[in-house]
Amino acid sequence: MRTETQQRSECVFSNFLDLLGDKWTLLIIRDLMFFEKHEYREFLSSPESIATNILSDRLKKLVVANVIAERVHPENRSRKFYYLTTKGKELLPIMIEMAKWGAVHFPELERMQGVYEKLRANTSEKLCAQVLKKLSAWEKENL
Amino acid sequence: MRTETQQRSECVFSNFLDLLGDKWTLLIIRDLMFFEKHEYREFLSSPESIATNILSDRLKKLVVANVIAERVHPENRSRKFYYLTTKGKELLPIMIEMAKWGAVHFPELERMQGVYEKLRANTSEKLCAQVLKKLSAWEKENL
Repeated sequence: MRTETQQRSECVFSNFLDLLGDKWTLLIIRDLMFFEKHEYREFLSSPESIATNILSDRLKKLVVANVIAERVHPENRSRKFYYLTTKGKELLPIMIEMAKWGAVHFPELERMQGVYEKLRANTSEKLCAQVLKKLSAWEKENL
Repeated sequence: MRTETQQRSECVFSNFLDLLGDKWTLLIIRDLMFFEKHEYREFLSSPESIATNILSDRLKKLVVANVIAERVHPENRSRKFYYLTTKGKELLPIMIEMAKWGAVHFPELERMQGVYEKLRANTSEKLCAQVLKKLSAWEKENL
């Protein structure tokens, strides 16, 4: 007979949410994916005002899970930058579908109107390709 | 100048996560979407062992947000059943993309192997259509 813990770990959604089902975690991924943020202080400056202890904790967890990786900043050894791994970049279709859902169900968000237009005008595949291209360009320059 | 709260509410991801970025909330949606669970006691019996107070709270919030709806059980007025609204069913592409990600990155989950095979063998569109068909069949019988 299985214990609760074993049963729990056997559902893909349960595992996904244990790893990523935390608001702050997904906002860090959003910043890396769409806003070209790569440094601790850049995540801190996002409008959601993440607390420093939560930010440090979530960055560590994401590195351990191999969703993001870190590297010492070439210009200053006391700074680090973070970037999405392949595993992290593969979260993109999920984020795109979330944004598409929001375009339908949060139509009132003023600042999103430009993004919503793009979401309506393009397939998920095309949107993913555009973001991946931007991420690759950053990687070529920085890694 | 905008306040933090106003800024926060202007990102589609932030709004999405405020509404649905909670592990228990998404597990209830999973149960409604894939496991044909529609009653309080059925959600309680899921292997993640949700607490009764959390379950009641999340069901209420989802009803208020019009992601799910409730109805008095035809056979017993003290029972209720819950079902996904159109808005709730439109979360399906997000859930399918999450499961597809898990099929790649949680390959070790034994109980998921059958589902993983289906996920690999079918497009997201086809998988969504299959689930929607099952949900419609339930609705025809019960609503």
